[in-house]
Amino acid sequence: MSYYIEPIARLINELSRLPGIGNKTAQRLAFHIINMPEDHVKSLAKAIDEVKGQIKYCRICGNISEEDTCAICKSPARDPSVICVVEDVRDVMAMERAREFKGLYHVLNGTISPMDGVGPDDIRIKELLQRVNDDALKEVIMATNPNIEGEATAVYISRLLKPMGIKTTRIAHGLPVGGDLEYADQVTISKALQGRREM
Amino acid sequence: MSYYIEPIARLINELSRLPGIGNKTAQRLAFHIINMPEDHVKSLAKAIDEVKGQIKYCRICGNISEEDTCAICKSPARDPSVICVVEDVRDVMAMERAREFKGLYHVLNGTISPMDGVGPDDIRIKELLQRVNDDALKEVIMATNPNIEGEATAVYISRLLKPMGIKTTRIAHGLPVGGDLEYADQVTISKALQGRREM
Repeated sequence: MSYYIEPIARLINELSRLPGIGNKTAQRLAFHIINMPEDHVKSLAKAIDEVKGQIKYCRICGNISEEDTCAICKSPARDPSVICVVEDVRDVMAMERAREFKGLYHVLNGTISPMDGVGPDDIRIKELLQRVNDDALKEVIMATNPNIEGEATAVYISRLLKPMGIKTTRIAHGLPVGGDLEYADQVTISKALQGRREM
Repeated sequence: MSYYIEPIARLINELSRLPGIGNKTAQRLAFHIINMPEDHVKSLAKAIDEVKGQIKYCRICGNISEEDTCAICKSPARDPSVICVVEDVRDVMAMERAREFKGLYHVLNGTISPMDGVGPDDIRIKELLQRVNDDALKEVIMATNPNIEGEATAVYISRLLKPMGIKTTRIAHGLPVGGDLEYADQVTISKALQGRREM
């Protein structure tokens, strides 16, 4: 027996399919939605309903865009001699927030992960190799995540790029700013030591 | 500058208005929604959009219902001589899950809380008093939450009911089953001691 009437049970069920939303949270959200003003509910439902139809993926870098080419690839202010390779669209946003990088991006849409059946052909590596033929390109920065899959993908791509005469770099590993040496794991500490720089 | 294109920024904004959903979680949910199959997205949006229009509140107990009278109030299997008074609809579900109570409910839709400007007239106390005139009623169980507002509301209602000759009881306070004496707070422990029963 379900203790909720059908429209609520259906909403709870839909909400609990979302990542990180368990049954309890879904219940809380559902009751919040019931008590929300009508126009808030409508605009939430509309935003969810329309988002998929309104987004495209940039045909150059794979970033999310409202048009065929994204704002970054189109911008004359960006330096086309550097491409930063990231795993997914959110990583582009994370890089942009840092306001450090002024080049272009390439979104892989994943990492090589044999355990999950994802091979080099399943992510956007060949699209990257096509972009490398551009004369302007001087450097490719591998900014995949610092985990096993991210490292393996970075190494794989760098081995493809080296024979093409492209400089390939990897973002630094080390202690996060504001972090605490005492709580850092051994691998991070040894990476931070290996990557030490003269002051 | 926003780093997200407009449909995504709007969705993130809508999601982050929900309780317990911060900006980071909203971003994660938004990207999950973008990658969800089209029909899942549609049914999520539909469930949110329709829930408010499809629910009513039971004219007797105030529980959520698809019809004017809820399934519990309508059921001939429920005992009309006991009414359990709870703060909100979710508490009805919590009681029902325990499968212990076979009487009827009364949902207050809140508690008396002068700090928040909620007085006795703002919650469904007069509706409760109207129900008390029913001859069949023998006992009212106060199952408001065991906090200051819940206690105050329970005491307030019991003082109204006593002159009417209705037995008013309060659910027991004590250690939760599976809990740990070591981690229980002092008030709970003293309540548990006061409420001890012969074995």
